Amino acid sequence: MDLIDVPAGFRFSGMASGIKKTGKLDLGLIVSDSPANCAGVFTQNKVVAAPLILTKPRIAKGKCQAILVNSGNANACTGAEGLRVAEATMELLAGELQISTDLVSLASTGVIGELLPLSPFVDGISELVAGLSADHAQVVAEAIMTTDAFSKVASATEYGEQGYKVLGMAKGAGMIHPNMATMLGFVLTDAQVSLDLLNSALQQAVKKSFNSITVDGDTSTNDMVLLLANGSSDGKRIEADTPEAEIFCQHLDEVLLDLAKMIVRDGEGATKLVKIKVVGGSNVESARKVARSVATSSLVKTAFFGEDANWGRIIAAVGYSGVDVNPDRIDISFNQVPVAVNGLACGGESEAEATKVLQLDEFVVTIDLHQGEAEASYYTSDLSYEYVKINSDYRS
Amino acid sequence: MDLIDVPAGFRFSGMASGIKKTGKLDLGLIVSDSPANCAGVFTQNKVVAAPLILTKPRIAKGKCQAILVNSGNANACTGAEGLRVAEATMELLAGELQISTDLVSLASTGVIGELLPLSPFVDGISELVAGLSADHAQVVAEAIMTTDAFSKVASATEYGEQGYKVLGMAKGAGMIHPNMATMLGFVLTDAQVSLDLLNSALQQAVKKSFNSITVDGDTSTNDMVLLLANGSSDGKRIEADTPEAEIFCQHLDEVLLDLAKMIVRDGEGATKLVKIKVVGGSNVESARKVARSVATSSLVKTAFFGEDANWGRIIAAVGYSGVDVNPDRIDISFNQVPVAVNGLACGGESEAEATKVLQLDEFVVTIDLHQGEAEASYYTSDLSYEYVKINSDYRS
Repeated sequence: MDLIDVPAGFRFSGMASGIKKTGKLDLGLIVSDSPANCAGVFTQNKVVAAPLILTKPRIAKGKCQAILVNSGNANACTGAEGLRVAEATMELLAGELQISTDLVSLASTGVIGELLPLSPFVDGISELVAGLSADHAQVVAEAIMTTDAFSKVASATEYGEQGYKVLGMAKGAGMIHPNMATMLGFVLTDAQVSLDLLNSALQQAVKKSFNSITVDGDTSTNDMVLLLANGSSDGKRIEADTPEAEIFCQHLDEVLLDLAKMIVRDGEGATKLVKIKVVGGSNVESARKVARSVATSSLVKTAFFGEDANWGRIIAAVGYSGVDVNPDRIDISFNQVPVAVNGLACGGESEAEATKVLQLDEFVVTIDLHQGEAEASYYTSDLSYEYVKINSDYRS
Repeated sequence: MDLIDVPAGFRFSGMASGIKKTGKLDLGLIVSDSPANCAGVFTQNKVVAAPLILTKPRIAKGKCQAILVNSGNANACTGAEGLRVAEATMELLAGELQISTDLVSLASTGVIGELLPLSPFVDGISELVAGLSADHAQVVAEAIMTTDAFSKVASATEYGEQGYKVLGMAKGAGMIHPNMATMLGFVLTDAQVSLDLLNSALQQAVKKSFNSITVDGDTSTNDMVLLLANGSSDGKRIEADTPEAEIFCQHLDEVLLDLAKMIVRDGEGATKLVKIKVVGGSNVESARKVARSVATSSLVKTAFFGEDANWGRIIAAVGYSGVDVNPDRIDISFNQVPVAVNGLACGGESEAEATKVLQLDEFVVTIDLHQGEAEASYYTSDLSYEYVKINSDYRS
């Protein structure tokens, strides 16, 4: 990441505090100059880590000024003791920044079931705060990495007088990895955005991005996406249901989708990025269900790895999606090459063409249900030897 | 299989008809001396192969005398033409046996989307019927194999005056493999069983066996389990809600569970057979949901392969099962070794003990939800390099 467009009024810091025994960066801090409007999306998992228990009600109040995040330990399944440690880190930071603990959000990612040590925070917090700088966004993106092969940053800019910037960073590889834990996303903008719009925009953007990617179908105890808008740009306030709101949503969608695609690309052992596009659905929810069923099928994903235009596995996954489809109407194509029409094979030549598509790093599988006008897409990766290696070796 | 207990009044035949280009056995035939009472369970996949379209309504009428099965081609996604071929094979067999086509059931397993050739049936049917013998059950078990590493036969005997036998055979490896297709199960008994009991007993037995195993979570276009009772034993008729019915159900459960475990053991690349036992559920359905969520998690399955007592992945899979659990009450153990109590780690020594359990070929993971008295189990395998190899290489 050579150039990061940093929204005004945000500063960043990162350090190696010793939580990770490797000595790599493991603490990150994002601070807004003033309390920002905020919105959040949190894991649906019933097992919820301590930082989420504390952060969720704070974000719900609509104001946030600082995000403190650690990697190397998820502080999940750690009970009352884990909660006490999380509260203590929150107080340490609030004290150092001289703000209310109500304005602090916490995130953790790493091993589940081990107590998060407090001492790295006690020892490091002054240094962490002292390091705050508008230039250090990249450092935070690196401090939140666990099994990620690369850091993930994306940005968008609205130019002109009413201009503002949107900056996102995320971690996640092998979506989702409950052990090293977690998909985290932090999105910052200096636009002035109403709370209503912020919430609805984030919900929609997450649905089309982070909730439309799958590497292994598991969701973690620590997943969270936070969106902060501090209004430090010169632009006027953006309200819901206006042309400006639409533009803001487009920028947000773009940033989140870029991050989501990076996560799929960084899927453990992934060699391909595949978009599963379902068209002709009777409604969006059923189209999503079909796309998800295909995107999470281990057999479909191994066929991608084998570069095999195996539409039989795809149509079977459509069939068990739970959606009432008519198999005799289904068309399937790889990029623009049809492999099945009306549920029947297109035959030799088109399959040879399709096999060439599968050799690409990135391609689109389009499934037309011919039931209506609704569309939905999922992004997935192939399932490779490397996936098994990374995930079977990991703790030992 | 040295000794197979064959129920009276059934004969078997198998041959290599040329559907499989390898020259291996690919046609199987089971014939009862008289029309048998029958029950069936069929795939829930919306994409249904031609043989199922013909067989389902026939089984629903309650009488079946012959099962004709081929491997090497699933006759799925083959449209009207595939249906015509299936009808023609049915007529060929009925003509040769001089019975009504209403008494013939068809099953196919193999590649999806390629037309099943009729000529192997035309050329082979006389030889197939001529080969019928009470001694050839094993040949049919072999004729239905596709990627199976071994044939699967199980049996049970009720001794005494009212004695009878139950014989089951199945195919399936890498449950389920939509490409080579299918879990097939054929269960035969010479007991005299009422249609009501036959249907309810099969539903229950399938739920506890074939519907409680998972290797990769995919279900195929061709799955079917048929149960035939021809009453050729000397025993009197068994009616529902009697002590005799209970004994019959026990024998049926045992045979189906044995077959199901063989399928998990034969899971593509599987090295371990793991029972996921959920206890303390508020009801059986939610306990099943939790067990299924854990059993189908790619991350849990790769951890088994890595022999890592990674209960964090297990509790995360419990958490996203969709069941309302209380994480702080959950206990997890491997065989009898606790790794988590009240959602918290048991610590070093017990984890070392648990790691030893994971080195076994077969073990039980018990998850206590402490919500009620309901229990449910799933059988699963580990996810190994070999799984990816088999499924990515397969068609090419």
